[in-house]
Amino acid sequence: MVVARNPQSSALSPSAFVIDADVHTVVPSVGVLFPYLTDFWKEYITQSDFKGAREDPYPKNAPTTIRPDARRTDGIAPGSKLAVVQEQSLAGALWAGWHVRYAILNNTYSLESIHNPDAAAALAGAVNDWHIAEWLEKDDRLRASIIVPSQQPEMAAREIDRVGDHPSFVQVTLPVHSLDPYGNRRFYPLYEAAVRHDLAIGLQYGGAPGSPPSAAGWPSTYMEEQVDMAQLFQSQLISMIVEGVFNRFPTLRVAVIEGGFTWLPSLMWRFDKEWKGLRREVPWVRRPPSDYIREHVRFTTQPLDAPPDITQFLHILDQIGSDDLLMFSTDYPHWHFDTPEEAFPFGALPEGMVRKIMFENARAFYRLG
Amino acid sequence: MVVARNPQSSALSPSAFVIDADVHTVVPSVGVLFPYLTDFWKEYITQSDFKGAREDPYPKNAPTTIRPDARRTDGIAPGSKLAVVQEQSLAGALWAGWHVRYAILNNTYSLESIHNPDAAAALAGAVNDWHIAEWLEKDDRLRASIIVPSQQPEMAAREIDRVGDHPSFVQVTLPVHSLDPYGNRRFYPLYEAAVRHDLAIGLQYGGAPGSPPSAAGWPSTYMEEQVDMAQLFQSQLISMIVEGVFNRFPTLRVAVIEGGFTWLPSLMWRFDKEWKGLRREVPWVRRPPSDYIREHVRFTTQPLDAPPDITQFLHILDQIGSDDLLMFSTDYPHWHFDTPEEAFPFGALPEGMVRKIMFENARAFYRLG
Repeated sequence: MVVARNPQSSALSPSAFVIDADVHTVVPSVGVLFPYLTDFWKEYITQSDFKGAREDPYPKNAPTTIRPDARRTDGIAPGSKLAVVQEQSLAGALWAGWHVRYAILNNTYSLESIHNPDAAAALAGAVNDWHIAEWLEKDDRLRASIIVPSQQPEMAAREIDRVGDHPSFVQVTLPVHSLDPYGNRRFYPLYEAAVRHDLAIGLQYGGAPGSPPSAAGWPSTYMEEQVDMAQLFQSQLISMIVEGVFNRFPTLRVAVIEGGFTWLPSLMWRFDKEWKGLRREVPWVRRPPSDYIREHVRFTTQPLDAPPDITQFLHILDQIGSDDLLMFSTDYPHWHFDTPEEAFPFGALPEGMVRKIMFENARAFYRLG
Repeated sequence: MVVARNPQSSALSPSAFVIDADVHTVVPSVGVLFPYLTDFWKEYITQSDFKGAREDPYPKNAPTTIRPDARRTDGIAPGSKLAVVQEQSLAGALWAGWHVRYAILNNTYSLESIHNPDAAAALAGAVNDWHIAEWLEKDDRLRASIIVPSQQPEMAAREIDRVGDHPSFVQVTLPVHSLDPYGNRRFYPLYEAAVRHDLAIGLQYGGAPGSPPSAAGWPSTYMEEQVDMAQLFQSQLISMIVEGVFNRFPTLRVAVIEGGFTWLPSLMWRFDKEWKGLRREVPWVRRPPSDYIREHVRFTTQPLDAPPDITQFLHILDQIGSDDLLMFSTDYPHWHFDTPEEAFPFGALPEGMVRKIMFENARAFYRLG
């Protein structure tokens, strides 16, 4: 099987299937969640100034938030309605020639910015129920991530237990920017619940826990935050591996979503070297950290922080040393590229690798049929 | 001219010169600073519990802190006495065949951990005067970085003005871990002073400003901090470029010291791409960010976060796209490698590149004779 992006590409055939590992739904306003909230919360939201999460890692009018060809004149935010996602993303209006077999829905509703734990948990449940009722049960190509009040791991575990057996949930989303690193033992109840339901953990671009998005402090601009986010993904993987999450939960799988991957070789070299020098501090880390990454972690491809030179891009894939780690994603409706070749240079890759990246790796990782 | 590491190496000749861009001095105890402190501070330190900076990015007995062959039986900390540095580092007891023409002394005394600004400034002055009297004026191969109370940029500027015209100072050290990112406008007085005395800024591994060393929060182990430090260097470069430091100070030069450099290609790709999408927010950034890095920033070579495969290492140098950016360093007496080949694989590089890395790049950057 060969996979297709457009009929002109030599490596891709228009008859093939892809899994899109990152499609974003958007809660356009808290009103759409009302059918899934109790009277208490509806009254609270209606009568107070609290209107749900306000932080958004994709500000409405930032050029990176919406592909220019996905912007609409009817005022509907792309990602907010099933019909729009079906048309623009699944049916390939923006991606001629692709047959989307599965798309993983990820929602970045910023529950971690809500400091009232009960409010965060109520809104998490509402978003998950909205996903079930208005998305997952209406299109069998869709799978989704559960969102949880990640700042309250016990409450997060309860939400995972509540909806985790729905067959269309494949993952639990954690915003990559957190107040404590995800290797911290306080997150164990959350991981226990994920493992109990055989769900992956998806580390998702963004997060607004209240702390600076850079270890150097508060930046002044959105651009700094955007570039800095790659460091946060690295810090979370460092924390999870060093603090022993994968020793405690050997079946746990983690997806790095919208985090890039060209930093991976450099991180693995540094990480393995420091492990050699400092492993006596963490005796439970019994293998080089890069082994844990290769075994437990997968990376979505978009946005692609790749060199303009295709040879250099192939060198990166060689340095990663595995063709199992990448999972194709469009990151719909976000926008980080201009042309299909910039999205992912499939034409330069061997057919077997293209198939793994476009389909097989995500199918195995998310246990899809 | 060819440069030498050991007589067996084909690419290096034993008669050649090197510049070691990172040699560490250590304040063994606050007592050595007493000749350079006023009576007020001597009394304060003697009579109170305050004994100077206690935070240390290189804890005394961590395996990374001292090369095994530099450990001594006489209790003297390597880096604390000129005679030991002369014997172990400059005269090549640890590096047979090298002729050190210049060595840049960097001191990581953690001034940023001292919350009393007057105490931090007094100790900064004492360390700088100790460097002048007991190191710089006793060996003409030595150059040094000024240390400053970086958390108080106006006071830092006064210290730079006080000692900045001493011909052996070539740089001002800033710990890479800071409370605010170094692109922030509050650091302008510090940069003005550095530029006034034609001094480089050296971003140095470590820093203890009180905030977590990772944007994901407080890690539990030293190993996580050590691996995470590479992200901090990236965040600081992002901040300085995005917030316009190099537009405001077009002659400012920055050295990344002990920060690694194999992450550089991935950062430049991501940075240039986000700049294309978001530059309207920062119109003063008129060129791709990678241009600013190549023009203003240099990187010391040790520790080397490099792949075990020499071909992959050559790919990294190709991706960096310039042989002007690296400055050889031993990072004496810290320890991150086992064999000379692991320190830097000179044998695989063209002779012209070796000469630039070992000598020319640092000579140009630090304006050495």
